[in-house]
Amino acid sequence: MALEILPSAASPSFWRQQIRDGHWRQHTSGLAEGYVQCNLVILPTRYAFDFLRYCQRNAQACPLIAVGEPGDYRMMSLAADLDIRTDVPSYRLFRHGELETEVTDLLSLWQNDWVTFAIGCSFSFEQALLAAGLEIRNITEAKNVPMYVTNRKTEPAGPFEGPLVVSMRPMLPADAIRAIQICSRFPAVHGAPIHFGEPSALGIGDLARPDYGDAVTIKPGEVPVFWACGVTPQQAIARARPDICITHSPGHMLITDLLNQHMAAF
Amino acid sequence: MALEILPSAASPSFWRQQIRDGHWRQHTSGLAEGYVQCNLVILPTRYAFDFLRYCQRNAQACPLIAVGEPGDYRMMSLAADLDIRTDVPSYRLFRHGELETEVTDLLSLWQNDWVTFAIGCSFSFEQALLAAGLEIRNITEAKNVPMYVTNRKTEPAGPFEGPLVVSMRPMLPADAIRAIQICSRFPAVHGAPIHFGEPSALGIGDLARPDYGDAVTIKPGEVPVFWACGVTPQQAIARARPDICITHSPGHMLITDLLNQHMAAF
Repeated sequence: MALEILPSAASPSFWRQQIRDGHWRQHTSGLAEGYVQCNLVILPTRYAFDFLRYCQRNAQACPLIAVGEPGDYRMMSLAADLDIRTDVPSYRLFRHGELETEVTDLLSLWQNDWVTFAIGCSFSFEQALLAAGLEIRNITEAKNVPMYVTNRKTEPAGPFEGPLVVSMRPMLPADAIRAIQICSRFPAVHGAPIHFGEPSALGIGDLARPDYGDAVTIKPGEVPVFWACGVTPQQAIARARPDICITHSPGHMLITDLLNQHMAAF
Repeated sequence: MALEILPSAASPSFWRQQIRDGHWRQHTSGLAEGYVQCNLVILPTRYAFDFLRYCQRNAQACPLIAVGEPGDYRMMSLAADLDIRTDVPSYRLFRHGELETEVTDLLSLWQNDWVTFAIGCSFSFEQALLAAGLEIRNITEAKNVPMYVTNRKTEPAGPFEGPLVVSMRPMLPADAIRAIQICSRFPAVHGAPIHFGEPSALGIGDLARPDYGDAVTIKPGEVPVFWACGVTPQQAIARARPDICITHSPGHMLITDLLNQHMAAF
C-alpha cells in the first residue's frame, strides 16, 4: 500500500476501508491519531447478559463504549460505515475458552445471535498523556505495554469471573500525579490508575516478567504505575468457556469515528 | 416510631430495618444523609439484557449503580443485609407498561427470574451541591423537583425507547458554573447538566407546567439548569410494555450503604 499521508493523519474511515479491503493486517497503534480504538468481544446472545453484567461490575477494567444489537454487525454509534465482520485487521476465535485460530474476517462465521461489545482501550489515555508532554515508556521503547495478572478478583457475573489484569507504565512521582489527574477525565478508557509503587501489593512477583506484553525499563526514581487493563475480560472468558467467542487479536483494534476527547468526562 | 436521633443521622441499615418492619412508608428524602439512594427497576430476565443495553446507551439518564443476579433479591455490593423485596417503602407494579397498584413489599410477588437494576438518583448530587453552599430551589421550597419530557430521543435497545426526561434547578450563572464543576465528579448519579437556559431547545414549552414533580420559583437573573433524570426509564418501560415490571414509588428510594463520596469519579 502506498500511503501518501502519515498513518496517524489518515481518517478512521480510510483505515477501516484499508482493513476491510485486506490491505492492512498489522497492529493499529498510531493509526488515525485522536480517535478511539476499542477492544472487541463477540459472544452469542445466551452469554451476552452475563457478560454485560460482568462489564458493568468491573467497569474500570471493562469500560463499555458500545454494545451491539443481537445479530447486528453494524455499530452506528461508533461509525456509520462500520462492519464488525471486516473492519478489524485480525480476529481471534475461541472455543470453550481456548484459542482455536486467528482469522481476518468474520463474513462466513457471523451468526444472527452474536452480540458485539466494544470496550475502551489504553491507546486513548496514552495519547492524552503524550499530549501533556509525559513519556510513555512502552511507546518510547516500541514495545507492547507490560501487563500482569494480579491477586485481585473481579466481581463475577454468571460464569464470568477471574483476576484483574493491569498494565504498567513507570513514571517519576510528579508525572504519575499528572497522569492520575489526566486519566481521571477518561473513565470510559480505564480512568485513573488503581495502584502505584510496590508490585507485591497486587501480588505481582517480578516486573521483569509480565504475563502479557513486554518488560520495559524502569529508571532510577521512577515508580511503576498500574492501570486496570482491557485484557481482564480475556481471563474471564477463558474461565467461562463459552462454546464460541471472538475477540480482536492483541493490538489489532477496532478503529472508531469517536474522538478521544469525546471520552472525557469533564 | 419514636426516633431519638435525627432522621438524617441514622444509618442506612437502621432505615432499611425500619422500612422492612413496616415502620416507615414515607419518602426517603433526607434520610441517612451522605449515603447513596437508588432508583429501582425490576424486570424478568427475558427483558433484562435489553434493558441493560438501554441503560448502557443512555448512561447519563440511567446510571447503573448495580445489577442483581437473576432471581437474587440481595445486592451485596449495595449493602450486606439488603433485601430488595422489603427494603423500599413503596413499590409500583406495572403490567404491560401501565401502573396497576402500589405495594409495600414483594414477598409474595417475587419471581426467581427477576433482575434488579439500581440506578443513581439526584439526591446524591443535590447533597454535593448543598455541601458546596449552593441553594437547591426544590429543597428550599420543599417541593418535588420539576421534571420535563424533552424532544430528545434516547438510544433504543430492543423494545426500550422513548424521550429523555430532565430535572430542572434554577441558578444564577456563577452557581450554575459551580454546579457543572461539582456534578462532573459524579457521572454515576447523572453527572453534569445537559443544558441550561432556553427551555425550547429541549422542546419544553412552559417551565411552570412540569410533566412530573412541582414547579419552582425562578428568580430574576437565574437560568434554568437541566439534568438527565432517572424518570427516563419509566418512559421507556411504558413504551416497551413488559408484562410485569416493578419500580420504587417516586421519592421512595432504595437506601444503600454506599457513601455519596464513593460515587465521585475523581
